[in-house]
Amino acid sequence: MQPATVKALFFDVFGTMVDWRRGVAREARTLLAPLGHDIDWIAFADAWRGEYQPAMEEVRDGRLPFSRLDVLHRRMLDRVRPKFGLERLEEATLAELTLAWHRLDAWDDVKPGFARLRERFLMAPLSNGNISLQVDLARRNDFRWDAILGAEIAGDYKPKPRVYLAAAEALALAPAQCLMVAAHSSDLAAAAALGLRTAHVARPDESPRGEAAPTVAVDIAAKSFVDLADKLGA
Amino acid sequence: MQPATVKALFFDVFGTMVDWRRGVAREARTLLAPLGHDIDWIAFADAWRGEYQPAMEEVRDGRLPFSRLDVLHRRMLDRVRPKFGLERLEEATLAELTLAWHRLDAWDDVKPGFARLRERFLMAPLSNGNISLQVDLARRNDFRWDAILGAEIAGDYKPKPRVYLAAAEALALAPAQCLMVAAHSSDLAAAAALGLRTAHVARPDESPRGEAAPTVAVDIAAKSFVDLADKLGA
Repeated sequence: MQPATVKALFFDVFGTMVDWRRGVAREARTLLAPLGHDIDWIAFADAWRGEYQPAMEEVRDGRLPFSRLDVLHRRMLDRVRPKFGLERLEEATLAELTLAWHRLDAWDDVKPGFARLRERFLMAPLSNGNISLQVDLARRNDFRWDAILGAEIAGDYKPKPRVYLAAAEALALAPAQCLMVAAHSSDLAAAAALGLRTAHVARPDESPRGEAAPTVAVDIAAKSFVDLADKLGA
Repeated sequence: MQPATVKALFFDVFGTMVDWRRGVAREARTLLAPLGHDIDWIAFADAWRGEYQPAMEEVRDGRLPFSRLDVLHRRMLDRVRPKFGLERLEEATLAELTLAWHRLDAWDDVKPGFARLRERFLMAPLSNGNISLQVDLARRNDFRWDAILGAEIAGDYKPKPRVYLAAAEALALAPAQCLMVAAHSSDLAAAAALGLRTAHVARPDESPRGEAAPTVAVDIAAKSFVDLADKLGA
């Protein structure tokens, strides 16, 4: 790959940039422990996230019109909470709990790597998270995005081709001028099939299924955002 | 108006934040003078901008499917250039000239006012300019947007209601939580009709039609971005 031809970096966010598992567990505990709930918070985060692909699949296959991820997160929550004895939460509590996904912290290497990468490339999230969710994560973690791209702009969810192509088009770039950065091989495989360049970032601690290395061919395999900046000469 | 209820500021960009008239004149001269053209560059900028509302009206009334402003800028250019003896420009020159609108400079008061406003409010352009155009203006002028909203997100052009409402929805806010900032009374009238708050910024030097004061009722009438920050307590 010629890094000189790449103009923009597109980033997966959940798992790749922010630690959703410990963050959701912490936010849930902060909100629910004072109400007397005492559950396995990490197991709760995993179960909630476990409804992610099935929920999006309803949109991807056309059963459900496009709905922002905040809306899907609430549906997912309603499916899993009976398993954790959370049937009787008040509406206001449920609304607040759904926003746990807006309050996640970045992995430690993101900040120093991001600052270097931003000097050289346009930077945008290419996430399934909605715009207001990305705005909140960006304010919390000081992600200086050039634009918020991704599912809400495209009206569909990754790995549908439209989501990647809409991001490139929004920046008036060809797919080969865009590099998709993700900790998930499936995301990178979908991007590569459309002609985008790809970089894997190892996140073995994301969850028990976290990837220490890509399982598909990629242009760059990085250990961290700092390593990615090194490998891109940024 | 209770500033405490406002969560986000939406900004018109051409005229309100950047000086399109002198900027387009400068960019055109820089590109075309070396090719031997010697025209009234300010008159050329005015004529080009003069095609703005007619071009957008074709989209607003449904004669033309939504097209990004870069595309409309090129159509507008093709209409006016015969009047300035620019019939024979090469395709590459025309493409480059069209990007003049990506290379405009902010009025001097924007930078200090913007920095203060950003501490208190979410900030987004609500412009008819497309995403890549806004990204280029933001990089050039260091506008730290939270998201790029506006026409391209909405698939229509101001002052159509959808453009203002789509911006509020993208941030999960009610219209009354959003304040539209513009130097043009017509833009503010359209926003106010939908329930948004409004702030006028005086730009008497924008062009001979520049507004020194609003001609419609507004929540705030400011002399500059710094004055706006003062009046919003930012």
